[in-house]
Amino acid sequence: MTAPTQTFASLRDHLHQCALIASAAELLQWDERTMMPTQASEFRAEQVAYLSGRAHAMRTDSQLARWLDELEGWEAAADPHSDIGATVALARKDYEKQRRLPGELVESIAAATVRGQGCWDTARRNDDYAQFQPALDEMISLQRRAGELLADPGQSAYEGLLDQYEPGARVQDLASVFAGLRDELVQLLSEITVSARQVDDRLLKQKYSVDGQRQLSTELAKAVGFDFQRGRLDETSHPFCTSLGPSDCRILTRYDEDWLPGSLFGTLHEAGHGMYEQGLRPDWYGLPPGTFVSLGIHESQSRLWENLVGRSLAFWKHFTPQINETFSQTATPEQWHACFNRVQPSLIRVEADEATYNLHIIVRFELEQALISGELSTNDLPFAWNERYTSVIGVSPPSAANGVLQDVHWSAGLFGYFPTYTLGNLIAAQLYESADEALGGLDAQIEQGDFAPLLGWLRENVHTHGRKFTADELVQNTTGKPLSAQPLIASLRRRYAMVYDLA
Amino acid sequence: MTAPTQTFASLRDHLHQCALIASAAELLQWDERTMMPTQASEFRAEQVAYLSGRAHAMRTDSQLARWLDELEGWEAAADPHSDIGATVALARKDYEKQRRLPGELVESIAAATVRGQGCWDTARRNDDYAQFQPALDEMISLQRRAGELLADPGQSAYEGLLDQYEPGARVQDLASVFAGLRDELVQLLSEITVSARQVDDRLLKQKYSVDGQRQLSTELAKAVGFDFQRGRLDETSHPFCTSLGPSDCRILTRYDEDWLPGSLFGTLHEAGHGMYEQGLRPDWYGLPPGTFVSLGIHESQSRLWENLVGRSLAFWKHFTPQINETFSQTATPEQWHACFNRVQPSLIRVEADEATYNLHIIVRFELEQALISGELSTNDLPFAWNERYTSVIGVSPPSAANGVLQDVHWSAGLFGYFPTYTLGNLIAAQLYESADEALGGLDAQIEQGDFAPLLGWLRENVHTHGRKFTADELVQNTTGKPLSAQPLIASLRRRYAMVYDLA
Repeated sequence: MTAPTQTFASLRDHLHQCALIASAAELLQWDERTMMPTQASEFRAEQVAYLSGRAHAMRTDSQLARWLDELEGWEAAADPHSDIGATVALARKDYEKQRRLPGELVESIAAATVRGQGCWDTARRNDDYAQFQPALDEMISLQRRAGELLADPGQSAYEGLLDQYEPGARVQDLASVFAGLRDELVQLLSEITVSARQVDDRLLKQKYSVDGQRQLSTELAKAVGFDFQRGRLDETSHPFCTSLGPSDCRILTRYDEDWLPGSLFGTLHEAGHGMYEQGLRPDWYGLPPGTFVSLGIHESQSRLWENLVGRSLAFWKHFTPQINETFSQTATPEQWHACFNRVQPSLIRVEADEATYNLHIIVRFELEQALISGELSTNDLPFAWNERYTSVIGVSPPSAANGVLQDVHWSAGLFGYFPTYTLGNLIAAQLYESADEALGGLDAQIEQGDFAPLLGWLRENVHTHGRKFTADELVQNTTGKPLSAQPLIASLRRRYAMVYDLA
Repeated sequence: MTAPTQTFASLRDHLHQCALIASAAELLQWDERTMMPTQASEFRAEQVAYLSGRAHAMRTDSQLARWLDELEGWEAAADPHSDIGATVALARKDYEKQRRLPGELVESIAAATVRGQGCWDTARRNDDYAQFQPALDEMISLQRRAGELLADPGQSAYEGLLDQYEPGARVQDLASVFAGLRDELVQLLSEITVSARQVDDRLLKQKYSVDGQRQLSTELAKAVGFDFQRGRLDETSHPFCTSLGPSDCRILTRYDEDWLPGSLFGTLHEAGHGMYEQGLRPDWYGLPPGTFVSLGIHESQSRLWENLVGRSLAFWKHFTPQINETFSQTATPEQWHACFNRVQPSLIRVEADEATYNLHIIVRFELEQALISGELSTNDLPFAWNERYTSVIGVSPPSAANGVLQDVHWSAGLFGYFPTYTLGNLIAAQLYESADEALGGLDAQIEQGDFAPLLGWLRENVHTHGRKFTADELVQNTTGKPLSAQPLIASLRRRYAMVYDLA
C-alpha cells in the first residue's frame, strides 16, 4: 500500500472501532428501555457513560489530526462526495467540532442533563414551572456557551447548536420556509374548522386489543419493507429507533387499547427510520458514507412512511380487509382514512394532527432561539408560550404541564433539535412528490400493497449516499429544486380536501 | 489520602473499568442468544471481540504491575483474606497468568475455537469423527502449549488449564475423590438396576404446555429466592446464566412440551447460579471480593438448588398442589418425586440422571488428561471413549454423534472444565449437609416453602466471601472438613433408597 492508502486504512479502522464501542453503548441503552431489571439502572448508567466516554476520547484523539493532515492533500480524497473524500472531510469536521468543547463543559452538560430531566419530571408532575426554572436557566447558559464554541464565524450560538442535528442548516433559511408554511397551515386550519363536513370518529372511540395491534403493527412494518432478519420490533413507553450494527436495527412502539392510531402510525414512523438505517451501506457502517445525513433527513424517512404513505386513502384501500378482520370491524377504506386524518387543534405536540403539528414546532423554534440569544428570559417564558399558542394554534394552555412543561427536550439540553421535526415533514413531502413522478404514480402501487418501488427509489436517492451530501444538496439533487413548503402544503391540501370536502 | 491508599484507589478504579467493559461484552452475548436478529451475527462477533480485546489489554497493562509492586508491601494488604489483601493478591495472580500467554497464542486459540466449533458442529451432524479430528488435534496442541505456560512449577500442563476454571485444584486430589465416588456410584447403580421396585414414569410421557412450564418455572425461581428486580428469566436453546452488572443477572432456560423436567430443573439450576451472582457484594462487583470463587463453587450453587432442594420429596410435598393445578394433574408428591429421580443409564451427559451424571464426567476427566499429556492420540480417542463408556456406565455408543462428539467443550478449547461439574455436585452435597445441621433440619422448612434460611446461610457462608478464599478453603471453613465424596454418596443413597426401595 502507498503511504496515504495505509494512513486511510488506519483512519477507517479507528473510526470503525469508535462505531463498535458506540453501537455497544446503543445496545446497553436499548436493553435499558426494554429488558433490564428495575434495580440495574445505576450500574447501567456507569456502563453507558464509560463506553460513551471511550468513544468520545477516540473521536478527539490527536492521532486523527495527524492522519487527516496527511490525507487532506491526497488526490483520492479530493472529491468531497466520494467515499474517501467524504470520510476525510467529515472526519475533519467532526474532529474539529468535538475538540471545540472543553471536557469540563461536556461533563457539566452531561451532569446538568441528568439533573434537568429529574427536575423537569417532578415539575411536570407537580404542574409547577418554578421547580424547573433554575435547572432550565443553568441548561440555557451551558448550551449558549456550547453554541458559541460550536458556531462557525458569522453564525449565532443557536446555529452552532442546530448544526449538531442539522449540519449546514441556516436559521434564516428555515425561518423563511417555516413562515410560508405557517401562513398556509393557519389558512388550511380555518377552512377545516368552518367546513360543513366533519369527521365521524366513533370508530376510534372503541377498544382495540393489544394483541391485535401487535399483530397488525408487525404486518404493516413487514409489508412496507422493514427487514425483520436485520431488525426487531419491540415495546416501550417512549418509542424510538436505534442502530446496533449494520444488520441490527431495533424499532419500538407502544400499544394502548384506547388509541389504535398510536401503535399503527407509531410503528410506520419507526419502520421508516429503521428502513433508512437498513438502507445505509453496511461496509461503511458508522463512517460518513454509511451514516445518516441529519435528523431532518432521518425524520423525512419516518414521516414519509407514516403520513404520505400510511395516511393515504390508497394505503387503507389495501389494508382495510386486514384491519377489519383483525378487529372484527366492517368499516370502509374511506371511513378509516377519514378517522386517521381527523384534524383537532390541541395543546400537546405529540398528540397533534398533521395540520397543526408543525405549528407546535414553529412556536418552539421561535422561543428557543430567543432563549439562547437572551432576548427571552425564563421568567417570561410561560407567558410567551401561552401567548404564542393562543395566537398561532388557537388554543390556550390551562396549565404549565399542558404547556411549557410538556416536552423533555430543553431539560435534556436539546436546543436546535425541534426544527428537524418540521424539516422532516417538508422533506418527506418533497421527496414523495419526486418519487411519485419518477415512478409513474404511487397511489396505484400502494393500493396493490406494492411498496418495493418506492423503497427502492429512496434507497437509491437517499439511503445509499450516507452523509456524502448535505441535506440541502440531497434535496436539490434528488428533487431538482431547493427545499420548499409547497409539496407539503399541496399534499395536506389534497388529503384534507377529500376528508373535509374543501374547495 | 496516603500514597498506597491513592494507589489502591487507582487499582480499584482500573479493575472496575475492566468490569464495565467485560459486562457490556456479556450483554452483547446475552442479546445474541436471545434477541438479536439473525443476520446481525457477523458484526456482533466483531463487537464482542473488540470489547473482550480491550478488557484483556487493560488486564495486562503494565501499569498494574507498578501499582501492585507498591501495594504488596502495604500493611493494609497483608491479610490475603481481607478485601484489600485479596484484591491485591488476586490481581497479581490474574495479571501474571494473563501475561504468560503471548498475544499470538491467545489469538490462535480464539481463531481455532471459531473453526473448531464449526467443524465440530458439522462433524456431529454428519456423525463423522474424522471431520473433527484435525481441528481437535490443532486445539489440543494449542491448549497443551497454553497449559505449559500457565502451569506453576511442579504442575502438569493439564493442571495449568484446570487452574483457569478451578484455581488451586490439584489433579491428584480430584482423582482420588473421584475414584471413591465412582466405585460407590457403580455399586449404587447396580443395586438400582436389580431392584424389584422400578419407577412408573408414565406421568412424564405426556405433553406439558409451554405456557404452563413458563409460568411454573418462573414461580419456582421466585419461590427459591431469585430476585426478579435484579434479574430476568428468558428462553434460549442452550440455557445459561450471565451477569451484566451487580443488579442484573440473567438466567435462561428452554421449554419442551415433551420433557417437563428439562425446564423445571433447568430453571432451578440456573436460578442457583443466579442467586450466587445476586449474593456477591455489589460494591466490589468484578473485583476479587465480589467475584465467584471457581466454576466448581458456582456449580455447587446451581446443583444444590436443582438437586438437593429441587429433587427432594419435601420440595414436591410443597409444590405438588401447584404443579397439579398448572397442568390439571392429580399425582401425589411421591409420584412426582419418583419420576424426577428415575435412574436410567444413557449415552448423553446432558440427559443423564444424578446417579450416572458424574460417571460421564469421570470418563471425560480421564480422557482429557491423557489427550493433553499426549498419552492418548486422537486416532485412539473414539475407541478409548467407547471402551470407557461400556466399562464405567455400561452403555456402548452406537455412533460418534452419541459418543465422543456429543459435547462442544473440546472444540471450544475447554480442557480442564469438565471436572468442575462433578466438583459442583460434591460441594453442593457437603454444603447442604452442613446447612441442614446448622439450620436444624431443612426438610421441614422446604416442605413449608421457606427457602430463606437456606439462602441466607449460603449468602453468609459462601456468597459474601467472593474470591477471598479458595474453593478448598471455603469448603474446609464452612463444613469443617476437606472435600469428600461421602455427603454426595449419602444423599443419593438416601434419596434412591426411598425411590427404589433399597436396603
